Amino acid sequence: MLPFIRSDLAQLTAYTPHPGGESGEAVKSDIAIDRLDTNECPFDLPTELKEKLSWTFQQVMESNRYPDGGHTALKQAIADYVNESANLYAQSQAIAPNFTSSNISVGNGSDELIRSILIATCLRGEGSILVANPTFSMYGILAETLGIPVVKVSRNETNFAIDLAAAQNAIEQTQNPPIRVVFVVHPNSPTANPLTAKELDWLRNLPEQILVVIDEAYFEFSQTTIVGELPQHPNWIVLRTFSKAFRLAAHRVGYAVAHPKLIAALEKVRLPYNLPSFTQAAALVALKHRQILLASIGQILSDREELINSLAQHPALKVWPSAANFIYLRLTKTEDNSTPDKLKVLVQQLKAQGTLVRHISGGLRITVGSTDENQRTLQRLAAALHS
Amino acid sequence: MLPFIRSDLAQLTAYTPHPGGESGEAVKSDIAIDRLDTNECPFDLPTELKEKLSWTFQQVMESNRYPDGGHTALKQAIADYVNESANLYAQSQAIAPNFTSSNISVGNGSDELIRSILIATCLRGEGSILVANPTFSMYGILAETLGIPVVKVSRNETNFAIDLAAAQNAIEQTQNPPIRVVFVVHPNSPTANPLTAKELDWLRNLPEQILVVIDEAYFEFSQTTIVGELPQHPNWIVLRTFSKAFRLAAHRVGYAVAHPKLIAALEKVRLPYNLPSFTQAAALVALKHRQILLASIGQILSDREELINSLAQHPALKVWPSAANFIYLRLTKTEDNSTPDKLKVLVQQLKAQGTLVRHISGGLRITVGSTDENQRTLQRLAAALHS
Repeated sequence: MLPFIRSDLAQLTAYTPHPGGESGEAVKSDIAIDRLDTNECPFDLPTELKEKLSWTFQQVMESNRYPDGGHTALKQAIADYVNESANLYAQSQAIAPNFTSSNISVGNGSDELIRSILIATCLRGEGSILVANPTFSMYGILAETLGIPVVKVSRNETNFAIDLAAAQNAIEQTQNPPIRVVFVVHPNSPTANPLTAKELDWLRNLPEQILVVIDEAYFEFSQTTIVGELPQHPNWIVLRTFSKAFRLAAHRVGYAVAHPKLIAALEKVRLPYNLPSFTQAAALVALKHRQILLASIGQILSDREELINSLAQHPALKVWPSAANFIYLRLTKTEDNSTPDKLKVLVQQLKAQGTLVRHISGGLRITVGSTDENQRTLQRLAAALHS
Repeated sequence: MLPFIRSDLAQLTAYTPHPGGESGEAVKSDIAIDRLDTNECPFDLPTELKEKLSWTFQQVMESNRYPDGGHTALKQAIADYVNESANLYAQSQAIAPNFTSSNISVGNGSDELIRSILIATCLRGEGSILVANPTFSMYGILAETLGIPVVKVSRNETNFAIDLAAAQNAIEQTQNPPIRVVFVVHPNSPTANPLTAKELDWLRNLPEQILVVIDEAYFEFSQTTIVGELPQHPNWIVLRTFSKAFRLAAHRVGYAVAHPKLIAALEKVRLPYNLPSFTQAAALVALKHRQILLASIGQILSDREELINSLAQHPALKVWPSAANFIYLRLTKTEDNSTPDKLKVLVQQLKAQGTLVRHISGGLRITVGSTDENQRTLQRLAAALHS
């Protein structure tokens, strides 16, 4: 390693977005690939919205000028949507919130917001973070790139609820540095389960010097949100994204909702021009026409139930319920679940047939795609299991 | 401050991209604003390139899919351009380099690359950075957000050359942590001077455990580059941007050229999907049609010389030579240069007339705009000085 590189960086490996590979050598080039490994929405923006955006790009946007670094219009539109979602999907009977731009920060995907949270809280040896595995890997990866310690607790294998006794113990025992941030996903990835009442109660009772990050990347599919509780918890922050239900993964927009003081700290540490003009325009168009985009959620949810019901009938598979746009399954005991090779072969067989899925934490995470893609998932999985 | 926020963050203030304000209250709304405060190219992409990009967006790009996180096509195209620029503008008689994708990393503007460099080298108390003020403020700002100490040396007031004795002394004396990274801009902002032969010699002789960052954001205007020397210096890295000569400030693309081992370290710490698909497409289109875009440089350079020659005749102004697309000037002694109020009033007067300039380091930094804009700069500056 070069002598000016940080001494702990050698042991880290770069994150590979598609560990199974995109259209790799094992895939015949003449078949369409079903990309069900990254939990994207299966549908592109409708033609009329792409035309609108093209018009804005050609007639209004100045490519030679820096973007609006304050995200003025976008933050306002997001605040309106957050208020709307709080009223639609309130989990508690709290008073309807009235968020404004001062409650919102936007990032280059949620990834940038996760990094900003880590920078604002834990650097200089001031804090560790707590995660409950299996969960979204980016919290731990980004913490490690910043030299921030990651404390890991487990989940039970029945319903993937967090081992709260272990979590509480970690909070009480971890020193030098203590745990400053707890990351949870609601619903969790890769296991698709929402936070339980017990988990929420535990989060509500955490001391105010611990920041609670609740990642609601998939909340449009779970149709539950805890944003309504944010006014009572200045140590909570909700992350969301335009990459899933809003179909904008290509354009990279995530947002955070929290107390204005916490938002101000995130704004201090972010890059001044973090969001390209086209990206801001795309998010604004998507929000304005959200009824069109979110109309496909009903189809995805009913397809998801069909997929789960069909797969659950296969004796070789254990399938969990899902509150997201993906499902999680493992091989049953008789199929020797403890042998990772069996799963690895299965992933390769699916890939050879043209379906990409994610091999993760001893199971498969499969995105709910279009109805046609889901049919192929069922057929190809059955074929692979019988081969 | 909230108790989970880093203890040193309270003293930092958020970076404000336009300290003079955009079209603020002092600007009459019925006049066009000459935005000469951020060193952008005055020209948007030509219509035919915007049409090409719109076509790609509508017909090829899938908004619902994550971007290419490996930047495969873009890195290759950048490597080709870097090789071309090395041959065109070689400063030394070194053998023509043959850079490949492995020498390139791309970021959300150079800002993200600066942050990645800081993360990969100085975190965990392992290093400080050295800057020579006045210079691009982002090195120091991003270092401070990461809790990294910033050692500052000065430049002489005649030609803004770095005080190399002070710099050498800082390198030798700074401990806990030592200086690991030296940042220079070639040519410098806000003072528009390229690195001198003496400065280059000093950089060449720095020990190999110190990383040298040479920011060539404006090299297309200076028409000099040191990339040809990179193969001899594994501890050098060159930063460049598409925000200036390539007219893509709105789309946020910067790139780094360096030894593959150093590039690999930066790739490890960057966000996996840091560049939106549209941004990558825009940079590819700009590179492919670079002859069209770079054709405007001749005009900008000759306008710059006219602007400098005219302003130099004004007794109240001291104007410096420029190797970039902006000029730097101060008030002469008789105008009481030591009073910042006088400059502040001047900036306000220019703004009231519709010209935004940057008040920085006891002087004004004024972007070379279109020929019409430059004429107005001359008229408005003369009017303000006589009022």
